[in-house]
Amino acid sequence: MKLVLIRHGESDWNKQNRFTGWTDVELSEIGQQEATDAGKSLKDKGYDFDVCYTSYLKRAIHTLNNVLYELNREWLPVNKSWKLNERHYGALQGLNKADTAAKYGDEQVKIWRRSFDIKPPSLKEEDERNPAKDVQYREVDKADLPLAESLKDTIARTVPYFEQVIKSDMLAGKRVLVVAHGNSLRALVKYFDDTSEDEIVEVNIPTGIPLVYEFDDHFNVLSKYYLGDEEAIAAKMHQVANQGKSNQ
Amino acid sequence: MKLVLIRHGESDWNKQNRFTGWTDVELSEIGQQEATDAGKSLKDKGYDFDVCYTSYLKRAIHTLNNVLYELNREWLPVNKSWKLNERHYGALQGLNKADTAAKYGDEQVKIWRRSFDIKPPSLKEEDERNPAKDVQYREVDKADLPLAESLKDTIARTVPYFEQVIKSDMLAGKRVLVVAHGNSLRALVKYFDDTSEDEIVEVNIPTGIPLVYEFDDHFNVLSKYYLGDEEAIAAKMHQVANQGKSNQ
Repeated sequence: MKLVLIRHGESDWNKQNRFTGWTDVELSEIGQQEATDAGKSLKDKGYDFDVCYTSYLKRAIHTLNNVLYELNREWLPVNKSWKLNERHYGALQGLNKADTAAKYGDEQVKIWRRSFDIKPPSLKEEDERNPAKDVQYREVDKADLPLAESLKDTIARTVPYFEQVIKSDMLAGKRVLVVAHGNSLRALVKYFDDTSEDEIVEVNIPTGIPLVYEFDDHFNVLSKYYLGDEEAIAAKMHQVANQGKSNQ
Repeated sequence: MKLVLIRHGESDWNKQNRFTGWTDVELSEIGQQEATDAGKSLKDKGYDFDVCYTSYLKRAIHTLNNVLYELNREWLPVNKSWKLNERHYGALQGLNKADTAAKYGDEQVKIWRRSFDIKPPSLKEEDERNPAKDVQYREVDKADLPLAESLKDTIARTVPYFEQVIKSDMLAGKRVLVVAHGNSLRALVKYFDDTSEDEIVEVNIPTGIPLVYEFDDHFNVLSKYYLGDEEAIAAKMHQVANQGKSNQ
């Protein structure tokens, strides 16, 4: 069984180096091109799919749309779930990463960005950014909606969604494509690879590069590889790792 | 209960005045703008939806994408079905309407375009355009796939899809948007309004103008109206009616 994961391309706020989380920002032009390139690369390698999954956020949805356009597979079923959303960044959402680092120090920002179970400062209930006030989550039980999430919290919604929904499609023989976010994909990677809590926070998934997992029938990983140029992938991983520093 | 129907915007082949049917052509720039305008008009009037339906054809999918973008509702579930596809135009697919009219006569083309139960010439089994050979319909039982359709044939797949699938969403209180094609929408209009076979072939649904139906609990039509400027709608209907004539 194969599964392909793609992290959405660069968004307007990646570009501005702001904490995004659940803020529903658009892809930048570069991000749109990354998505198109991901689709071309899948097409060149002969990949095909039966069903797609993505989040409620337009940077992921648009990435998937571009990929499906390139594959000439826009007619495929697409399932959208908030459980594949990016980690909720709480009160940091909207703040510039470098400014936040200058104010709180690189170390504190690194803790918020890279610790396994420490949440960033929470939104207040009355904050306009509270997902419970957002029409986008009107179908979701308010008790399930976060005001801030650690990576652990993100895992606690993403992995059950994989187990309860995506996995059954794979077991039915369907070829699945998941287009999501840095942290919701990190959740899946930890689950598949049984990565430790210390290690997973250092894993950087590059944007717009298809990540292929091959499994045996018991979901043991047989192999795992990116589709793309190795140097470009390494450069992208390095770039993500450095985003939280104040003056780099 | 309300239901909103939208016919996709102008496609590259509408523009070239060619029989399209199941040929998977793109929207023209005008068509993309029509879709955007339809979304804006729904937004201005305060419309919202819980679920969307469209066909397997990209001119409808892209129209829906543009509408959802304007409504800021790209996270809504979208169900795609070949049963909402345009009428299959058989061996006429790809031919210029005016050339076809010049060759076979306006009267014959009018019969093919506007009769209720006469199919256009069928594709041969071995024709490249046979949907049974097309990866896009690989999930569909080959016995269900047409080589040509009359409007009656289109109705025979579209109306059961409405009754078996869309209707249950509406009965569950969901607000439904359907983006489809001239003839698959004509099928629904005939079913809702109980239009006669003679009359339905004269009904021209303008592109990109939301058509709203309001029903009572037994699906009797309470009212029916277009959202948009009356003169623009009348001009569009006239344009569609004249497409099959050789020198107009």
